[in-house]
Amino acid sequence: MTSETRDTRPFAVLDDTLMESWPTMSEDDRLEVFQSMTRGDASELFLTLDPADQEALITPLPANEQRVWLRLLPAEDAADLIQQLDDQEERAALLALLDHRMRPEVEALLAYQDDEAGGLMSPSYAWMRPDMTVAQALAYLRLQSADRVSMIYYAYVLDNSQRLLGVVSFRDLMAAAATRRVEEVMLHDPVSVLEDTDQEAVARTLQESGLLAVPVVDDEGHIKGIITLDDVIDVVQDEATEDIQKIGGLEALDLPYWRTSFFEMLRKRGGWLALLFLSEMLTATAMGFFQTEIEQAVILAVFVPLVISSGGNSGSQASTLIIRAMALEEVRLRDWFRVVRREVVIGLGLGAGLCVIGFARISLWEFLFGSYGSHYLALAATVALSLIGVVTWGTLSGSALPMVLRKVGFDPANASAPFVATLCDVTGLVIYFSIAKVLLLPSLGVQ
Amino acid sequence: MTSETRDTRPFAVLDDTLMESWPTMSEDDRLEVFQSMTRGDASELFLTLDPADQEALITPLPANEQRVWLRLLPAEDAADLIQQLDDQEERAALLALLDHRMRPEVEALLAYQDDEAGGLMSPSYAWMRPDMTVAQALAYLRLQSADRVSMIYYAYVLDNSQRLLGVVSFRDLMAAAATRRVEEVMLHDPVSVLEDTDQEAVARTLQESGLLAVPVVDDEGHIKGIITLDDVIDVVQDEATEDIQKIGGLEALDLPYWRTSFFEMLRKRGGWLALLFLSEMLTATAMGFFQTEIEQAVILAVFVPLVISSGGNSGSQASTLIIRAMALEEVRLRDWFRVVRREVVIGLGLGAGLCVIGFARISLWEFLFGSYGSHYLALAATVALSLIGVVTWGTLSGSALPMVLRKVGFDPANASAPFVATLCDVTGLVIYFSIAKVLLLPSLGVQ
Repeated sequence: MTSETRDTRPFAVLDDTLMESWPTMSEDDRLEVFQSMTRGDASELFLTLDPADQEALITPLPANEQRVWLRLLPAEDAADLIQQLDDQEERAALLALLDHRMRPEVEALLAYQDDEAGGLMSPSYAWMRPDMTVAQALAYLRLQSADRVSMIYYAYVLDNSQRLLGVVSFRDLMAAAATRRVEEVMLHDPVSVLEDTDQEAVARTLQESGLLAVPVVDDEGHIKGIITLDDVIDVVQDEATEDIQKIGGLEALDLPYWRTSFFEMLRKRGGWLALLFLSEMLTATAMGFFQTEIEQAVILAVFVPLVISSGGNSGSQASTLIIRAMALEEVRLRDWFRVVRREVVIGLGLGAGLCVIGFARISLWEFLFGSYGSHYLALAATVALSLIGVVTWGTLSGSALPMVLRKVGFDPANASAPFVATLCDVTGLVIYFSIAKVLLLPSLGVQ
Repeated sequence: MTSETRDTRPFAVLDDTLMESWPTMSEDDRLEVFQSMTRGDASELFLTLDPADQEALITPLPANEQRVWLRLLPAEDAADLIQQLDDQEERAALLALLDHRMRPEVEALLAYQDDEAGGLMSPSYAWMRPDMTVAQALAYLRLQSADRVSMIYYAYVLDNSQRLLGVVSFRDLMAAAATRRVEEVMLHDPVSVLEDTDQEAVARTLQESGLLAVPVVDDEGHIKGIITLDDVIDVVQDEATEDIQKIGGLEALDLPYWRTSFFEMLRKRGGWLALLFLSEMLTATAMGFFQTEIEQAVILAVFVPLVISSGGNSGSQASTLIIRAMALEEVRLRDWFRVVRREVVIGLGLGAGLCVIGFARISLWEFLFGSYGSHYLALAATVALSLIGVVTWGTLSGSALPMVLRKVGFDPANASAPFVATLCDVTGLVIYFSIAKVLLLPSLGVQ
């Protein structure tokens, strides 16, 4: 979906059954369906697809058909499509299919990063001069509306060197007397973003300002294009998907579930899984280190998964919470001390809760089944105290880790639930066996 | 941010420092800052806040001041603010502060659920009759634009009983000859949603249609209001936050991090943590069941965390991936068989990878440090084969669980990473010790 498709054919809907089955169709089936549609239906479908799907559809076609579809797109969408190709020659081949007016626009857009304002903007917008009268401005707007301009509801007021002076909405123009000048009714110093502003910052600017579109300017204030609200929804959705996948402990996918190939899937999941496995090997080392203690009291091994997983769970909660709060800018790096202080207290509270349940579970089993013998109290105390330590440590490290990652320049979302859980497993073992050495083993007459 | 604030004062920005520190201020500080601002600045600030913050700010004020702030809001925002209050009397007190025109509108909005189209819509929109000429329609639009109508860029064409006949954009009107009739230039059968359409479905409809706004109609096609694109960004953002928090293994918070009280935080995290702890107790039962085997070969205990956490990690990956794909409607319930088939193959692939690493780790340690004695091969085979089983099972259950939850009417996001990991821990133990009984213990001369 793009700003250009918005007003040109926004009120029609495609066949529901098709749209429902489309996301799960194979590429061959898609191509077949696409080819069998009327040109009109096919064009509607084509315009609703995302750039990756568009690229996949037109790649197998002959060049003269590719041209038809490519020219259907506004500049920013054509650029997004071409950006799907990694090969420079393939890119050049598609660029050559554009008409002489579009080609330089698309080439300019291709020079920007995909995830910054310049890569997101549309190069076509409505504009006027400050000394026009309102009547002239309305007539001029009408002219531009017949052209390829997408967002006609705001017009940007520019000087002769295309520097942004102000903005005027269609609504302001309608409400103003016909003989007044644009500069009298326009709003000065409009909200704008720079070409290299990160797309998340653009999304926030649009959300906070309540605007339908925001202009993109260069360092000297020359207008370069505009970004509309609907582009930002895609950004918000994509960023959330990326964070969710990272939180789940895999590398973010570039494509939807069914469009990600088997080997890509294996790579993006296998990489992190192997890394987590290698880190988790430290638990085998730690357990090996406490092997004597386990031989002395095998019952210790029985509670290992229960104790260490509690640390992992509390850590996953804390890290997920902080990752999302940082993404929404509810929590900033400079709040780190307040966050850590708060989370330690919450960790102690949560740990105390599990401590009580754990103590009760062991005492109850002893009472009901006589499971643990005469030293059950020492065992219960060991498990209960370990839980306080492990949960507090999990909460603390889970909340601190995303902030540490941000501080050293990484995405906080890499502090995924499985990653934090793995870290907590190792420390949890050390906490548990250290407490056992003091509380349980002496009561068994060991050492 | 609301559709109403959109065009009435969209181009001004508040002091950056204030807006940066605002999210982390205490309520007392906020009130103090708010009271010390000029009325104009305060009103700008007030309009940018979300309903919960607005409610917190005006609750301590005397009624005549509350009235000023409440009347500043358009109907749908006033309704959102009042909806923050649980107490019926407090709601009535605020409703009484509205003027006689707004009160019935707000009361009507309060009757809708917060998360359905009716609760999201604005009751004010631009409209016209089908038999008006384009010139008349433009003049009429101008009249309405001076009024409190938010989205002036689409006008809805209604019959005498307010039934929705079509839609016409400002752009269409501008491009059409002045003497043509609205019914000739309007688009028939516009995209619309029902009053009780879920907000996520509304968001998707708007995204897919590429519209700036969508009308809300009742069963008989009477227009009730409109929902604009900016409302949908908040929906998309909120739904993602909710899913992320659930995936992290806690109950979704109603408020931002700093605005959630300590006890609320303890409750929303403690509830799930306790539930996970109770489920994880099954590991103690399972380990107790295999206590004899551990006594016979303590080395078995050493690899317990490594083996079972691998199942949890692969399960977290799979469940997170499927939860998000279902939220984006990339994966539907009826695809379950294809998903499960694909995930089992991926699980086997991932398991095979860890199998190789695990086998290599144990063989290498034996070679370097002589850690495991003469039976190291049986041990390595036990761990390696368990990894294939555990990871395949983790991937299978992690991908199936969100679909099962959806099938029985729960939110798939409840198949959180820690929840899946807990389930995998128990089954992982059973798989590991069962394999050990066949492969390792006999080679030690046991049984």
